Amino acid sequence: MEEIKKVTKYYLLTPGPTPIPPEVALKEALPIIHHRTNEFAVIYRNVVEGLKDVFRTKNEVYILAASGTGAMETAVVNLLSHGDEIIVASCGNFGDRWLKIAQGYGLKFISICVEWGKVVKPSEIEKALKNNPNVKAVYTTFTETSTGVVNDIKTIGEIVSKTDAILVVDAISGLVGQEFKTDEWKVDVVVSGSQKGFMLAPGLAFITLNDKAWELVKTSKLPKFYFDIKKYKKSYITNETPFTPPVTLVVALEESIKFINKRGLENIWNDCKLLAKAARAGMTALDLKLFGEVPCEVVTSASVPIEIGGKIVKMLREKYGVSIAGGQGDLKGKIIRFAHMGYIGKADLLIGLACLEMVLVELGIKIEKGKAVAAAEEVLLKTE
Amino acid sequence: MEEIKKVTKYYLLTPGPTPIPPEVALKEALPIIHHRTNEFAVIYRNVVEGLKDVFRTKNEVYILAASGTGAMETAVVNLLSHGDEIIVASCGNFGDRWLKIAQGYGLKFISICVEWGKVVKPSEIEKALKNNPNVKAVYTTFTETSTGVVNDIKTIGEIVSKTDAILVVDAISGLVGQEFKTDEWKVDVVVSGSQKGFMLAPGLAFITLNDKAWELVKTSKLPKFYFDIKKYKKSYITNETPFTPPVTLVVALEESIKFINKRGLENIWNDCKLLAKAARAGMTALDLKLFGEVPCEVVTSASVPIEIGGKIVKMLREKYGVSIAGGQGDLKGKIIRFAHMGYIGKADLLIGLACLEMVLVELGIKIEKGKAVAAAEEVLLKTE
Repeated sequence: MEEIKKVTKYYLLTPGPTPIPPEVALKEALPIIHHRTNEFAVIYRNVVEGLKDVFRTKNEVYILAASGTGAMETAVVNLLSHGDEIIVASCGNFGDRWLKIAQGYGLKFISICVEWGKVVKPSEIEKALKNNPNVKAVYTTFTETSTGVVNDIKTIGEIVSKTDAILVVDAISGLVGQEFKTDEWKVDVVVSGSQKGFMLAPGLAFITLNDKAWELVKTSKLPKFYFDIKKYKKSYITNETPFTPPVTLVVALEESIKFINKRGLENIWNDCKLLAKAARAGMTALDLKLFGEVPCEVVTSASVPIEIGGKIVKMLREKYGVSIAGGQGDLKGKIIRFAHMGYIGKADLLIGLACLEMVLVELGIKIEKGKAVAAAEEVLLKTE
Repeated sequence: MEEIKKVTKYYLLTPGPTPIPPEVALKEALPIIHHRTNEFAVIYRNVVEGLKDVFRTKNEVYILAASGTGAMETAVVNLLSHGDEIIVASCGNFGDRWLKIAQGYGLKFISICVEWGKVVKPSEIEKALKNNPNVKAVYTTFTETSTGVVNDIKTIGEIVSKTDAILVVDAISGLVGQEFKTDEWKVDVVVSGSQKGFMLAPGLAFITLNDKAWELVKTSKLPKFYFDIKKYKKSYITNETPFTPPVTLVVALEESIKFINKRGLENIWNDCKLLAKAARAGMTALDLKLFGEVPCEVVTSASVPIEIGGKIVKMLREKYGVSIAGGQGDLKGKIIRFAHMGYIGKADLLIGLACLEMVLVELGIKIEKGKAVAAAEEVLLKTE
C-alpha cells in the first residue's frame, strides 16, 4: 500500500457553504421518508414556522429546491412583466446578479451601482425613485459577501415603503448571521438560502413576500413554471411543496432551526458581531488593510498584494486544509475573505488567522508571528 | 413519560423518493467541503462520467439544483422561442406536465394525449410530425409513474430522428431501473432526477443534450437565467456548476453511482424486471386487475374499488408503516402503485404484498391470506 504523504484535516471558513453541526448533518443520513405524509407535514410545518421567526416576518416563507439564485429568479419572474422598469442597487458580484436576471427577462432597469467595496447609497435610491415614478421594484443585497460590506436595508426600506414600488432584498448570506428584520424594516420580498447562516448543506432556497408584493404577483406576466410562486402558496396550506422537495435537507433544516432557537437569534447576531470584530483586529494586526466601506458581520475582507492574493487562498487550503475565499471578478487576487457565520466558532477563527500568519511568512511577507492571533484573542477575551 | 402506543418501522415502496442505501445516506452526513476546490472537482468529474454511463450517452450530463421538474423546464426554455410549435405526447400526470410548462411559456403545442393507462402511440407522433413540418420538438415520457406504463422510446426515437425535430424524454422515474439507451435510441434530450433509480435523496436533477439539440439552443429566445444551459456547459469544463450545488447530495451521488456500477446497470435492469413480474403475480393472485396497457418495470399499478383506494394507502402507512402510492388526478382512489426500483429488494416487495393482504382483509375484501406472497415467491424462486 502506498504511504500517504500527509493527513489533511479540513477547516471551512468560506462564506457558503459553511460548516454543518454534526447533529444537523446526521439528520441528512436518516432513512428518507415520503413527502406527502403526515410525518413530513409535521416537519415541514415546524420548518416554515421556524423560518418565519428567523426572517422576522408574519408572512409565509416558501421553500424551493434550488440554489439561492433560484429564489432570486423567483423574486423577479413572479413580480414583473416584460418591459417593466426596476431599480437595481448593486455593490458587488451578487448585486450584479439582479442585473443579469433582469437582462435575461427583458426588463428595463435603472442601475445604481457603486464601486465594489462601497455600499449602496439610500439617497441615490430615493432620487431614482423620484425621477422614475413607474419603477415597480427596487432590487438590492443585504450583506454583499463578494466584498464583505452590508447595506443599510432599514433606511432603504423606509424610503421604498413611501412609494408604490416594492423592495426586494437578497439576504442569502446575511440572514441568521446579522440583524435583519423583514417586517419591521418594511422589506417586501426577502430571499435566502440554506448554506450560509442556516449552517446546512446547499440545496434549499427560501422566499417570503408581503401583501404589497402579492399585489404585483397578480399582474405579473413573465413566463414561469417551476418558480411560479402561486404554486408554492397553494401547496403551503397542506404543508407541501408543488414539486418533490429535497426531503433529507428539509429534515436537517428542522434540526438546524432547533439549533438556532436554542442559542437564540439575537445571541447569534452578537456572536457574529464579536467574531467580525476579532477578525478585523487580527487582519489589522498583520498590517492588512480591511476592505469594504461598511464591513458586514458574516465575512471579513482584507486587501492583499495582487501577486500573493491567489497564493494565500491556495496555500491555506493545500498546506493547512483551511478553506477561505479570494476575490471575485475584478477583485480576483486582490482580497481575501474569512467567513465567521453559522457553525464557525472562536477557535475556528483563530485557526484561520494562525494559518494565515504561517502562509504569509512562507510567502516572504514580513509579519510578526502570533500577532493576528493575539489581537483576535484580545477582542474575544475582553467581550467574554 | 407518556407510554408510546406502538413503534412504527417504516418501509418505503413509493415511486420517489425511494429508499437510500445506508452507505449512500451516510455520505450526506460527512463534513461539507467547498464546491470550488480540487477535492470537489474530482468528485464532480467522477459523478458526471458515471452519469454518462448510466444515461448511455457520450454527451455531457449537467447537474442542476432542482426537482426533476426543474430539468424539464430547462429542456423547454433552452430549446425554443415564443410561439414555437411542439408536440407533446402524454399518457399521464407527468406527461401532462410538459403541456403545462409549454403553456406557461407561450408555446404552440399539438397535444397527442391518450387516456391514462394507455401508452403513447408512435404512429400518432409520426402522423403529427408529417402534418406539422414546423414542429421543433417532441416531448414525451419514458416510464409514466402516475399510471405505471412505459412508452416505446426506441421506436419514437427512430421516427423523430428522421425529421428536423428533436426528441425530449422525461426519464426521471425510469432511468437506472429500466433499460434506456439515450444515444442508441436517438433521444436528443433526456432529463432525470436523483430520487428514483439513483436511490438518492431528491434535490438534484440531470439533463443531457446531443448536437442536434444544441443547434436549437443557439436560436432559443425564451427568457431564462437559473436554468440557462449554456452556463452549465461553460462551468462543466472546470468541473463546476454555475451556482452553488447541493454539495452533500453530489458527494452521496458519487457513492450511489459506485453502488450502481458494482451491481452493473444491465443487472439492475434485470432485477427490476424480475421484481415487476413478481409484483404483477402478487397483485393478480389477489384478483386485483393490473392497470396499464404496457406495464413498466419500476412501478406496478393495480385497479382497486374506488371506495377503498384511499383507505388502502392510508392503512398501509398508518398501521404497518408501509408507504405506497395511490392514484393521481382522475385516478385518485382508483389505483394503487408499488414501486420496485432503486434500493427496493425482493424482501421489501414481499413485505408490501403481505401487508396489503392484511389491509384488504381488514377492509372486508375476501382474499386468501398469503396468496399474493406465494405468487410472488413463485416468480422470485423460479428465476433465482
